[in-house]
Amino acid sequence: MKQEESLLGLIKELYPICRSITGNGVRKSLQIVQNYIPVQIQELPTGTQVFDWTIPKEWNIKDAWIKNSNGEKVVDFDDSNLHVLNYSIPVDQVVSLDELKNHLYTLPDQPDLIPYRTSYYKEDWGFCLSHHQLMKLEEGDYHVYIDAALEEGSMTHGELFIKGKTPDEVIISCHICHPSLCNDNLSGISVAVHLAQQLLQEDLRYSYRFLFIPGTIGSIAWLARNEDKTQHIKYGLVLSCVGDAGPITYKKSRQGKAEVDRIVEQVLAESAESYEVRDFTPYGYDERQYCSPAFDLPVGCFMRTPFGEFPEYHTSADNLELMEPEALADSLSKLRRIAEVIENNGTYLNLNPKCEPNLGKRGLYKLTGGDTESEVNQLAILWVLNLSDGNHSLLDIAERAGMSFQAIRQAADALIEVDLLEEVR
Amino acid sequence: MKQEESLLGLIKELYPICRSITGNGVRKSLQIVQNYIPVQIQELPTGTQVFDWTIPKEWNIKDAWIKNSNGEKVVDFDDSNLHVLNYSIPVDQVVSLDELKNHLYTLPDQPDLIPYRTSYYKEDWGFCLSHHQLMKLEEGDYHVYIDAALEEGSMTHGELFIKGKTPDEVIISCHICHPSLCNDNLSGISVAVHLAQQLLQEDLRYSYRFLFIPGTIGSIAWLARNEDKTQHIKYGLVLSCVGDAGPITYKKSRQGKAEVDRIVEQVLAESAESYEVRDFTPYGYDERQYCSPAFDLPVGCFMRTPFGEFPEYHTSADNLELMEPEALADSLSKLRRIAEVIENNGTYLNLNPKCEPNLGKRGLYKLTGGDTESEVNQLAILWVLNLSDGNHSLLDIAERAGMSFQAIRQAADALIEVDLLEEVR
Amino acid sequence: MKQEESLLGLIKELYPICRSITGNGVRKSLQIVQNYIPVQIQELPTGTQVFDWTIPKEWNIKDAWIKNSNGEKVVDFDDSNLHVLNYSIPVDQVVSLDELKNHLYTLPDQPDLIPYRTSYYKEDWGFCLSHHQLMKLEEGDYHVYIDAALEEGSMTHGELFIKGKTPDEVIISCHICHPSLCNDNLSGISVAVHLAQQLLQEDLRYSYRFLFIPGTIGSIAWLARNEDKTQHIKYGLVLSCVGDAGPITYKKSRQGKAEVDRIVEQVLAESAESYEVRDFTPYGYDERQYCSPAFDLPVGCFMRTPFGEFPEYHTSADNLELMEPEALADSLSKLRRIAEVIENNGTYLNLNPKCEPNLGKRGLYKLTGGDTESEVNQLAILWVLNLSDGNHSLLDIAERAGMSFQAIRQAADALIEVDLLEEVR
Repeated sequence: MKQEESLLGLIKELYPICRSITGNGVRKSLQIVQNYIPVQIQELPTGTQVFDWTIPKEWNIKDAWIKNSNGEKVVDFDDSNLHVLNYSIPVDQVVSLDELKNHLYTLPDQPDLIPYRTSYYKEDWGFCLSHHQLMKLEEGDYHVYIDAALEEGSMTHGELFIKGKTPDEVIISCHICHPSLCNDNLSGISVAVHLAQQLLQEDLRYSYRFLFIPGTIGSIAWLARNEDKTQHIKYGLVLSCVGDAGPITYKKSRQGKAEVDRIVEQVLAESAESYEVRDFTPYGYDERQYCSPAFDLPVGCFMRTPFGEFPEYHTSADNLELMEPEALADSLSKLRRIAEVIENNGTYLNLNPKCEPNLGKRGLYKLTGGDTESEVNQLAILWVLNLSDGNHSLLDIAERAGMSFQAIRQAADALIEVDLLEEVR
Repeated sequence: MKQEESLLGLIKELYPICRSITGNGVRKSLQIVQNYIPVQIQELPTGTQVFDWTIPKEWNIKDAWIKNSNGEKVVDFDDSNLHVLNYSIPVDQVVSLDELKNHLYTLPDQPDLIPYRTSYYKEDWGFCLSHHQLMKLEEGDYHVYIDAALEEGSMTHGELFIKGKTPDEVIISCHICHPSLCNDNLSGISVAVHLAQQLLQEDLRYSYRFLFIPGTIGSIAWLARNEDKTQHIKYGLVLSCVGDAGPITYKKSRQGKAEVDRIVEQVLAESAESYEVRDFTPYGYDERQYCSPAFDLPVGCFMRTPFGEFPEYHTSADNLELMEPEALADSLSKLRRIAEVIENNGTYLNLNPKCEPNLGKRGLYKLTGGDTESEVNQLAILWVLNLSDGNHSLLDIAERAGMSFQAIRQAADALIEVDLLEEVR
Repeated sequence: MKQEESLLGLIKELYPICRSITGNGVRKSLQIVQNYIPVQIQELPTGTQVFDWTIPKEWNIKDAWIKNSNGEKVVDFDDSNLHVLNYSIPVDQVVSLDELKNHLYTLPDQPDLIPYRTSYYKEDWGFCLSHHQLMKLEEGDYHVYIDAALEEGSMTHGELFIKGKTPDEVIISCHICHPSLCNDNLSGISVAVHLAQQLLQEDLRYSYRFLFIPGTIGSIAWLARNEDKTQHIKYGLVLSCVGDAGPITYKKSRQGKAEVDRIVEQVLAESAESYEVRDFTPYGYDERQYCSPAFDLPVGCFMRTPFGEFPEYHTSADNLELMEPEALADSLSKLRRIAEVIENNGTYLNLNPKCEPNLGKRGLYKLTGGDTESEVNQLAILWVLNLSDGNHSLLDIAERAGMSFQAIRQAADALIEVDLLEEVR
């Protein structure tokens, strides 16, 4: 199966499920993910304290609708799980239109679309609907019904640890708490799953940890329960909104010049495509937690069009039609390339640092001089020799040379082959 | 009385007086200032050594004129005190036009205007007049008369010290030595006086020292006599040319990145108005002395149109008509804002640095999630939490967040209120 | 004789000689140079190990041609020494056109021009010719004849050491291995010779070492044999391509902010002419060796149009017609100016660092104040006083002031004269 199809296929499987920060939707989603990668499903009981937060009650929903006085369903959870205010408490009562309106959410500026709304930390009920639907509601009484349960239970997350040669870790984190919304963030889940699939085939230098977690509370819980592991995190990326047609946007870590920030920028710059790199801000996805001041981990956020900047964001229009298979594949491919640079970066020492070595006698020099083109083939070798003084990584060299990491890596390999270069440990 | 009227009112009171670096003009001006603020008038005797300089003889003038052979006054000190070369020695003699011309100063390119000229450190006499006046002088003898005295006396300056909670000081310095010239520098005097009036009403953290001094020799004398106080000067501004219609120009201190430089730029950037920030140069006003290498104090120069860059500069056209009451009030208001930032800046520690605190349970979070607008109200809080690691002041945070200092300060106050933030001492 | 004529005259003398990295062409060239400056001619025997390299056999050539089957010379070394692949081994045989073509080099895109090609480190023979010449060769047998010798001998270089007051050195290095090519690098040789001529007349603070060396192997050999001297090298420039009509291009040293880099940029910026400053790359001339990581010397490359960027580069069109006498003189004049800044830079201490000194009483101040032009004459003095805190060199001051080095130097001299400034040793 083509990569594009598989990426979109997983999104299609996950799309109908009603997820939230807790509940069976997340479990079911992770079980589907287990068909792709051996992700572990972990539970944390309601009431567990995680830093300043408490794991909330578990929320599950079976049905929900609004009926008019004729008994006709005017809003129905079966049409879209966005119709219910996520985390609504159960309700079954008859209310006037005026009272009902206090519990309705619409988007007057996008009157065809259903908004996505949540109320995790304040017990409330509500419905989301298109503004057109709202406009059609006539005066009268309405029967509102939400068959939901908010009870002691647990919060679920998925985790896959791929062990590499060193305990140093790369974390890939994506939120799994949104219901039927594709770009935010089934795209992130699918791309992460496929990246993990690829890395599972490889002999890796770094360990990789994939986290499929509810937004905010999920990363807070993980950090609270795994504080000892954070010292090993050398690189990290939060994935979200990676399936739309827009160019890549990378939001840097709080550190700003972390190696992960530089590697992502290097990979993006090497592609001939447009991209945007933004400075860190404390608003966004789970990088907010990874980059909180006591952790300050080198974790950035890898997106295409950022949240809030595409009109379909947090509406029913963030659906399968928004997904561009080529964009999903491109996101995956660039992440694969980022992992390659992470795996292959290193700092080396030129073993013949006094003047250039005689490359000709080692077969590394085009022997007939005077050809104006010859530098193109030699330049990477000369850069590696010139800057491999123990203070410059291959990434440093690629940046300064303005060349691709691969060209620099290949030059380094050629020099190692003839004993002119040695890794600095 | 409206602020604008009061600002202009003081300028009008001071305008007619003939000031110089010494003499009764300065005393009279400071006595007028005493009607506004309790400035202390201090005297330093002629001959006092101040570093490399000596306090000069005191200069006072009563009358001066040039009469033609018909006995008509062709130049008269009573018309404008700019007509006399400032610090002229007395003279009473009849000279030919040719000889007279050696003592006349005009502006051929601005033939309607009287130039302002001084001869503090070389004993000489002279008259300044418009080039048109000069052109009208016919051959013949002229009676020149200057009833001035250059004698042992003292140099006068005004000083107001407003004691705050800490001995750390903010100095506001303006030169008071120019005769009937408005922008340079009655504007600076009036704005300083009104700023002091406002600060006198406040409960201040920093101490504020207002200096009303003769240019160059005044700041040199103050520094020479108060060397021990300079260690307390944490911020300083020289005020000049703050009453014309041009945008604010700020010339940075020699240090260039002193907190005062950053605060002024922050305040100017927050206004939606145009402004210019320039690097330090060793030419200008008394910042030259405050920023001399052995002191290197964090003192910048706050102006509207800089000296020498408006055509009226150092001419009779720098008069009351050049004064824009709104500009004076705007200068005052921005200086007040600068003082507010100085007073309110500080470095804080996030007391819940591991992940974000649960703002919802503390009433600091809009509870219904998913609203794309919500970050606007929260962002300052998130920035303060994220950067309050003990290494970033609120000013640092405002700069990095690209937000107003006030938004950051308010966020900090809200967090202090709920015990999430604590000042670093 | 005018400087332009002398600069071009030496180029004309050297132009006809067939040079290579070894052999009599270099010796003869250096003997001509000895008519201008007392350069020492030094020899290093074939087989000498210099770091990773070995001094090659010495190459000398007497004659070379290709005759067609009619006995007509279709290619003749006497027409141009570029016709022979430089370092060709001797040959005397009859070959078919097809076989001959394996040994012919042309420039199809510049069909009128003979390319310059070398084969120093692989024994081979060959001819270079215009593509038009190649096209005219008819099928048939050709007699190829190269009367060359590749034998034990030595490599020759020229060196002139001008002793200054300190053992600290400035090196000026130019390659002397190219045959009849003017810009690359008879221009560099001629300009270096004339610069040396001028410096020989002076009382110098620094010592100057002029190196006339074969490219690559020459600088490697010099560094290998003079490693102990490299510690004294404080500034260095490689000269090449300094005779064409293009603006100056300066390629910075590997250090990038070495004083030599800043001085060259200062001198170029002071001229009203266009110029380009480029970052270091490890491809180019002998700066590659001087800037190899174990040496990392402050040596940049001073050019007009860089190698490979003018169409005549490494072809028979890099001839006397390409030389612009004014450009040669301008290159020399700017290098002379660079040497002046090197000679005259220094760090000084303001002996009156508390406030400005009274310049008036020392005759350094225009005494009648209030003149809007006066700063022009004073500004350099004020900058030197303000920044001479022991941490800023005159170069630093010129850079920060945006003024010419000479203006700053003159101001410093005036201040030294009145005991306000003292050199920091």
